[in-house]
Amino acid sequence: MVGVRTYLLVLRPILISPDPDHRQLVSSQGNQELTDSFGVSLMLADPSRKYRPVSPVNLANRQWPSRTLTQAPVWLSTDLRDGNQALFEPMNRERKLRLFHELVRIGFKEIEIGFPAASRTDFEIVRHLIDTDQIPDDVTPMVMTQLRDDLITETVRSVAGARRVIVHVYNAIAPAWRDIVFGMSVPQIMEMVERHIVLLKQLTADHPETEWVLQYSPETFNMAEPEVALAMCNTAIRVWDAGPQRPMIINLPTTVEVSTPNVFADQIEWMDRRLERREHIVLSVHPHNDRGTGVACAEQAMLAGAQRVEGCLFGNGERSGNVDLVTLALNLYTQGIAPGLDFSDIAAVARVAEECTALPVHPRHPYVGDLVFTAFSGSHQDAIAKGFDAQKADMPWRVPYLPVDPQDLGRTYDSIVRVNSQSGKGGIAFLLQRDHGITMPRRMQVEFSSVVQALADTSETELSSEQIWGLFECTYFASIREQSGFTYRGHRLYEHADGQGITLDIADANGNIKAVEGAGKGLIAATVAALGLPLRIDSYEERSLGGGSDAEALAIVEAAIPGVPGSRFGVGRHLNIVTASILAVLSAAARFSMLNKTSS
Amino acid sequence: MVGVRTYLLVLRPILISPDPDHRQLVSSQGNQELTDSFGVSLMLADPSRKYRPVSPVNLANRQWPSRTLTQAPVWLSTDLRDGNQALFEPMNRERKLRLFHELVRIGFKEIEIGFPAASRTDFEIVRHLIDTDQIPDDVTPMVMTQLRDDLITETVRSVAGARRVIVHVYNAIAPAWRDIVFGMSVPQIMEMVERHIVLLKQLTADHPETEWVLQYSPETFNMAEPEVALAMCNTAIRVWDAGPQRPMIINLPTTVEVSTPNVFADQIEWMDRRLERREHIVLSVHPHNDRGTGVACAEQAMLAGAQRVEGCLFGNGERSGNVDLVTLALNLYTQGIAPGLDFSDIAAVARVAEECTALPVHPRHPYVGDLVFTAFSGSHQDAIAKGFDAQKADMPWRVPYLPVDPQDLGRTYDSIVRVNSQSGKGGIAFLLQRDHGITMPRRMQVEFSSVVQALADTSETELSSEQIWGLFECTYFASIREQSGFTYRGHRLYEHADGQGITLDIADANGNIKAVEGAGKGLIAATVAALGLPLRIDSYEERSLGGGSDAEALAIVEAAIPGVPGSRFGVGRHLNIVTASILAVLSAAARFSMLNKTSS
Repeated sequence: MVGVRTYLLVLRPILISPDPDHRQLVSSQGNQELTDSFGVSLMLADPSRKYRPVSPVNLANRQWPSRTLTQAPVWLSTDLRDGNQALFEPMNRERKLRLFHELVRIGFKEIEIGFPAASRTDFEIVRHLIDTDQIPDDVTPMVMTQLRDDLITETVRSVAGARRVIVHVYNAIAPAWRDIVFGMSVPQIMEMVERHIVLLKQLTADHPETEWVLQYSPETFNMAEPEVALAMCNTAIRVWDAGPQRPMIINLPTTVEVSTPNVFADQIEWMDRRLERREHIVLSVHPHNDRGTGVACAEQAMLAGAQRVEGCLFGNGERSGNVDLVTLALNLYTQGIAPGLDFSDIAAVARVAEECTALPVHPRHPYVGDLVFTAFSGSHQDAIAKGFDAQKADMPWRVPYLPVDPQDLGRTYDSIVRVNSQSGKGGIAFLLQRDHGITMPRRMQVEFSSVVQALADTSETELSSEQIWGLFECTYFASIREQSGFTYRGHRLYEHADGQGITLDIADANGNIKAVEGAGKGLIAATVAALGLPLRIDSYEERSLGGGSDAEALAIVEAAIPGVPGSRFGVGRHLNIVTASILAVLSAAARFSMLNKTSS
Repeated sequence: MVGVRTYLLVLRPILISPDPDHRQLVSSQGNQELTDSFGVSLMLADPSRKYRPVSPVNLANRQWPSRTLTQAPVWLSTDLRDGNQALFEPMNRERKLRLFHELVRIGFKEIEIGFPAASRTDFEIVRHLIDTDQIPDDVTPMVMTQLRDDLITETVRSVAGARRVIVHVYNAIAPAWRDIVFGMSVPQIMEMVERHIVLLKQLTADHPETEWVLQYSPETFNMAEPEVALAMCNTAIRVWDAGPQRPMIINLPTTVEVSTPNVFADQIEWMDRRLERREHIVLSVHPHNDRGTGVACAEQAMLAGAQRVEGCLFGNGERSGNVDLVTLALNLYTQGIAPGLDFSDIAAVARVAEECTALPVHPRHPYVGDLVFTAFSGSHQDAIAKGFDAQKADMPWRVPYLPVDPQDLGRTYDSIVRVNSQSGKGGIAFLLQRDHGITMPRRMQVEFSSVVQALADTSETELSSEQIWGLFECTYFASIREQSGFTYRGHRLYEHADGQGITLDIADANGNIKAVEGAGKGLIAATVAALGLPLRIDSYEERSLGGGSDAEALAIVEAAIPGVPGSRFGVGRHLNIVTASILAVLSAAARFSMLNKTSS
């Protein structure tokens, strides 16, 4: 019993009482064996018993799941704040400024540039950006501070004189924080919020040259009683006196993700309906990713009424990160919505982010990872190849397995189809078509893919387009010389009673040229006759490789030997379409290993 | 205008017609500037106009958002199939077998072991596992095949003789695939499904020693008309004759994610209500992650009626990956639900997966990434420290910012609190407490954190616990010697009229020992008097470091000089609590740089 032995090892002292109902938890319709195979040891070892889910909000007449996204949110990048504070090495001034300018270039109109009252580096960078006028007119910087008199004062000092600033104040409101961290009651915390926003109002009134926007975040919102969160927000709204001339943002975070993402959407819709002066408030969300559902939380919150999303490029940020704004923005693309952010060269953005944060982007990261536009599987490759073929420039995008056109992100089609031992004929045919203009007939695809498969199975690694081309050359072209020792040297065509006569000059391994003659109804038949082979040509096709009068032609013949099952393909390539056809016949003959015998 | 200049660069030939309504798309309440700052160039460049969203299903009386998770699903690992086919280098036999046994050890009871009819390697591994009896009795292998006579025949051949097998047949059903890839109508595809399941039924009837389970996947389910998907599934159910003795799984994939995750949940609930013989069917989902919402799709699908989830460890799989089963399972923990999978040493599982797939796990990957149990921010560190303090063994887990106890995953507390320039006193105090047993008074935390901050700001890198300890030693301990050139060498206590008398032996830089005397109401006062310093001791505390009679004591004094603002802390450590106190006073005096002057 592998399962039981394993679970004994993870016994934890906390979990001791056997629970007769517990089998229920791991059982599931159709999975009786799973249940039966676990014994008491699993019950004892199960750490799940020390966790309690957060109660979902009671939302009557829920609307969000029936809505669809229709417009992009306002984006707030917190790469320089929440993203920066979670790095092994926080950014130095140079890296911070570089990332700031990249965020501006991408099109972010609101950027949280730091926590100036908590870090001297942050304070200096904030003042530097303002004093040297590096913040474009259409970009509003945001600075964060806790609710403490000295910090608020210092924060206002750090940004005074800017054209427009969002001051972001926050305090934790969930029960665990109230009880464990602060030892404060709800009325005490509410009073604290009120008092500090009064102070901020006074301090900012001294700087009328700056347009001041208040952002209030009830931190730990998603773990708090909704009534408490609402009371905090409405207090902030009333104290700030939010209105047409006093802009304000209410920002609701999943400080730590603790529920399925539908719960957060319910919480947002609940708040959306109840916030005071709602028409003067921008409702914002700030999802984290502890349960891997940050993007879902943001999207469903947008359905539920959120108008603004805070996050980071590629999901940087504390622990499992803030929500990934790149994925969110590009998800909008595929819903036919313009995100208002420029990721037309996503690889360049990833490079800047990687260099500034010293964190990698994963190969499977949506849209940007090295592997996300790659298909190794044969059926996927086949479908993609057909999809590209069918895709017209003025049609909506619908290439199978490619949710977005890689070119829209500045990515090439180069790595879409890659061949390994799990691949099929479709991918191989696609690569030969794309990189060498070669269109193989279907039965030839089957034939050649078994050649490629054999190599892929043996090498246990991915095969490059170049390797596949090498294999193609050595299977169909080089075979004439290497397998037979005979090389085409020239031909002469002439009229013949049967239709077409041909003289073929063939060189043997020693360079001795021999002329052979034949005739038939057409060129192919004459060539076969000249070679004196028992070859039957079942199909023939030839087309130019590329355009123009100097393009080479590629001839493909399918040949069989009467009485022998199966066929083989031969390929010839030449500027002269006649020569290409002759070479194709020679190739097919060589693949049956016939030239040796007949010519000796 | 940075924004406009940028967007001119991304002009695409496809998007040409200016759309007067387009401003609407990028505008949003409270973000008027964003709209105004974009010009015509953005409208032209916007690739979103070539994409069309998939129509959501029309679901009346939606139930899933009101439900909560109550039990774990059946897990199916497709690491060896969907995961394997998407690797740069597919696993060789050795790596495949290693990962198979790891999956068994973790507790997977259903494992897709390959696509035997499509790959010789797969065929051989499948037969090897069965023939050498390596599949435990409570584990059911699954093998996949397309609907083709020869492939189905080969697939049955690959697994015949096993105790129990799931044969997984699939075909793509969405419009783009029907039109572009197959050129087949819905009735034609339905007929194909019927014909091949009839064949499979016949072939499997020849092997009654094996318990055969059919899994049918309408591939591209999430992009298909729900009525078409339902008709395909019900055809498969009827033809297989699903029932108590003929087990069957209907598996619904998001082959490529194309919608917000609530749409998939709607699709699942819609199907759940309509599938025939529902009580005999295990309803399964197979989410991918193209939009970064695979985990959300799986969780919400479970709310909507899915009983089984297919995915991979750490989200391996085609493109952006299959849904991550590790995150899903551990998300259940925190809802108080036992996942039935053993991730009690998650780092070891990650190591095996990384070695077998040659793909890394990202530092921010939920639960397993290097950084996900790490707090750099001061307020987070402070809250975590208090949370650990308040956490009792028999209470539900509620440490702020730690959704799960790292020890439940075999991770230590070592990396939870890390200090960089963004950190505060809480984290520093936590590290000194955890690694050295030192409990600093609050004002001392403030004092010492400014020392650490100065170094962190300068070094622009993370500070290790060792570095912080080094800084603590050099600030409070070594300072006596280095700043003054004087070293404590001994003391003698005696009765005195004032209460306590002391003789202190102090060595100067040359090793010359000088005895100084003093007396006071207690030891501290006597020591100050002996030193002849204008020092006022405002607070004193001393406690043992660790337990046992041989534990050292740590004494901390807060000292001030009358008339000089501010205080400084001094620390002494010694086996003898008296000596520790004397050292603490010497430390404080040295920190005021007083010893030099008074002793000269």
